Amino acid sequence: MTDDREPVAHPGHRPGASFHEMWRDLLPIGRHTETGGYRRYAWTGADADCRAWFRAQAETRGLGYEEDRNGNQWAWLGDPAAGDAVVTGSHLDSVPDGGAFDGPLGVVSAFAALDELRSRGARPAKPLALVNFGDEEGARFGLACVGSRLSAGQLSAEQAHALRDGDGVSLARAMERAGYDPEAIGPDPERLARIGAFVELHIEQGRALDETAHPVGVASAIWPHGRWRFDFHGEANHAGTTRLEDRRDPMLTYANTVLAARKKARTAGALATFGKVGVEPNGVNAIASLVRGWLDSRAPDEETLAAVVGEIERAAVERGQRDGVSVTVTRESFTPVVEFAHGLRDELARLLGGAPVLPTGAGHDAGILSASVPTAMLFVRNPTGVSHSPAETAAEDDCLAGVTALADVLEGLACH
Amino acid sequence: MTDDREPVAHPGHRPGASFHEMWRDLLPIGRHTETGGYRRYAWTGADADCRAWFRAQAETRGLGYEEDRNGNQWAWLGDPAAGDAVVTGSHLDSVPDGGAFDGPLGVVSAFAALDELRSRGARPAKPLALVNFGDEEGARFGLACVGSRLSAGQLSAEQAHALRDGDGVSLARAMERAGYDPEAIGPDPERLARIGAFVELHIEQGRALDETAHPVGVASAIWPHGRWRFDFHGEANHAGTTRLEDRRDPMLTYANTVLAARKKARTAGALATFGKVGVEPNGVNAIASLVRGWLDSRAPDEETLAAVVGEIERAAVERGQRDGVSVTVTRESFTPVVEFAHGLRDELARLLGGAPVLPTGAGHDAGILSASVPTAMLFVRNPTGVSHSPAETAAEDDCLAGVTALADVLEGLACH
Repeated sequence: MTDDREPVAHPGHRPGASFHEMWRDLLPIGRHTETGGYRRYAWTGADADCRAWFRAQAETRGLGYEEDRNGNQWAWLGDPAAGDAVVTGSHLDSVPDGGAFDGPLGVVSAFAALDELRSRGARPAKPLALVNFGDEEGARFGLACVGSRLSAGQLSAEQAHALRDGDGVSLARAMERAGYDPEAIGPDPERLARIGAFVELHIEQGRALDETAHPVGVASAIWPHGRWRFDFHGEANHAGTTRLEDRRDPMLTYANTVLAARKKARTAGALATFGKVGVEPNGVNAIASLVRGWLDSRAPDEETLAAVVGEIERAAVERGQRDGVSVTVTRESFTPVVEFAHGLRDELARLLGGAPVLPTGAGHDAGILSASVPTAMLFVRNPTGVSHSPAETAAEDDCLAGVTALADVLEGLACH
Repeated sequence: MTDDREPVAHPGHRPGASFHEMWRDLLPIGRHTETGGYRRYAWTGADADCRAWFRAQAETRGLGYEEDRNGNQWAWLGDPAAGDAVVTGSHLDSVPDGGAFDGPLGVVSAFAALDELRSRGARPAKPLALVNFGDEEGARFGLACVGSRLSAGQLSAEQAHALRDGDGVSLARAMERAGYDPEAIGPDPERLARIGAFVELHIEQGRALDETAHPVGVASAIWPHGRWRFDFHGEANHAGTTRLEDRRDPMLTYANTVLAARKKARTAGALATFGKVGVEPNGVNAIASLVRGWLDSRAPDEETLAAVVGEIERAAVERGQRDGVSVTVTRESFTPVVEFAHGLRDELARLLGGAPVLPTGAGHDAGILSASVPTAMLFVRNPTGVSHSPAETAAEDDCLAGVTALADVLEGLACH
């Protein structure tokens, strides 16, 4: 642990220079050559490379480096034990074929903002920390925000040990192979108690900022959201010989439900998406016996969300009766609405000179932590709104505006 | 090669006894314990067990056993070189989680009909042969009737060598592993020239016979049919943050196309089925970038089929324009209408005392062979119409009526 709280002035500091260098180093890690998308899944080789990069960045800057019991990485400027720390960071893992910005922009901006603070000669009165939360996207084990959930006590070690990836490898085994101790995982209240404020910078996953004149915004809330598995049970049969009137084809019921979901969501001002499907037996000349479709739905408030999902379920059951198909719906996850700390949110908007305040539909580590510590988020403008895709992008100027905004926030919270 | 053409009278022959014994022996092979369905894929262990069973049945009866260059199995009563042979048989492989009857009923009935002929003391004037065609369902390599297609010159050795299974194993490598020589495969006109008539008995895959008083029917024709791959290209994006109006979601276009296909088929008196789907990236919280759906369509004639598929394609493209989704359609296979030999068909109906004559939508080895030799089919009643499913079934009495009908046909064609 170093005690390098004294900021170092860099007279030759060029804004953005350190940002560019870090960005360039990260870009090739876990990038799939064919799709151009990222496959940085928890506890894989690409993940290990990202972690090594984080540690090197911390050590290059003389920061105190530590890994907590859940595999989250921390870099400290100042004494962690002093308390009331101002913390910033995000995650480095990705969804399947994800973009370069979702997660890494927040981590790279954290280091760049620290460099900016030092070049300004700012003198933090509180400890500052940078963090990389493990397994935020849940791409491998199916549950998002595993690192922050464990630390915040929102996921038990027992539940985490039961998680398995698509090849049947348990999370525990995967951590072990990556050199971590799966027996050590669990709640980490002492570490969270050191945090006075957590601010996560993230690329916006939508186009709300793009419709304003602002490159950076402040989050107000995260919409309540959940995942529901719809199982449509019909009857397998020969596609070439079974008369239409003798069929019990669950693909029809599924198709009708997909269209109903879009319609119900539009009417309610909510979001509803079927993006994942599984079919049995999935043969070209076989009527399906089972179609499984996963519904992702989000809404401004929990009442609206419940109403939309209820209507989609009713539409599925009604059409199922016509098709001779039974429908069962299982809620696989649910996250209530997250209201970010109002005081911190207003302070950020003030520090940034009236930046727009806007809600988001996406879950984040910040959403998990908000139950334990005062938490806020900054969003950087996304010109196309595209996210979770190789086409995700942000303008260079907007990224640097994000760094400056984050530096302003850290300075405002820690130095005065 | 034996010359055991003299039929053996079995004074103590109980109708159905040999059928039951063979059926019982075959039942456990390749049956999946959880689904109860069959997974007898070409050139796997289950396939080898079926082949060993066929060979043992042939040898037990003193028949001449041979395997042809394409791995099809033959059992001869009489001299193959004599020509004008009467041949019957079907296949022993299955679709994924298929039923017990599709294929095996024709092979077991062939042996049982031969036993019946012998017990009647019938004296064939022509050679008789029983056949098990390899890889009829195409479950592993994606192309149906590989064994009969190769022999009939409808699939070249080069095309067959290029086939690969889901794990990337080539057909050639799979044959080699199973102890066959993939370099030997190819057209087999000499062997087909020995055949005077081929009759395949098969469980009906539909309920047309169930609506008559007849346990056995005669096939008139096989509907023209084909497979078309629909690729719906949209844009991957975050399901939790992308506004509905900013989306290009191919799942919507796919869903609308599924419903349109059913409607167009119903109007035209045709069949249209989407039973296989692939989604990228197939994540719960990701709007799909690509949905692939495979259309299986069949109709009484080729003009109707072309019209139905054309209408489905137009509906897909139109909806795609609304969704910002591009649609490409690729015909992966097409089989023209097959009219079975009219003389043979009428002879069978006469021999069976006015059995109903009906078309079918399913492809068969008999359909492939019909281009090379006079070919006919017998169907055995299917009370539920269910096929390509573990629930596929036929009544015991109907199966035995099928054996008797096949024995009558063989006797009528070979013994008079």
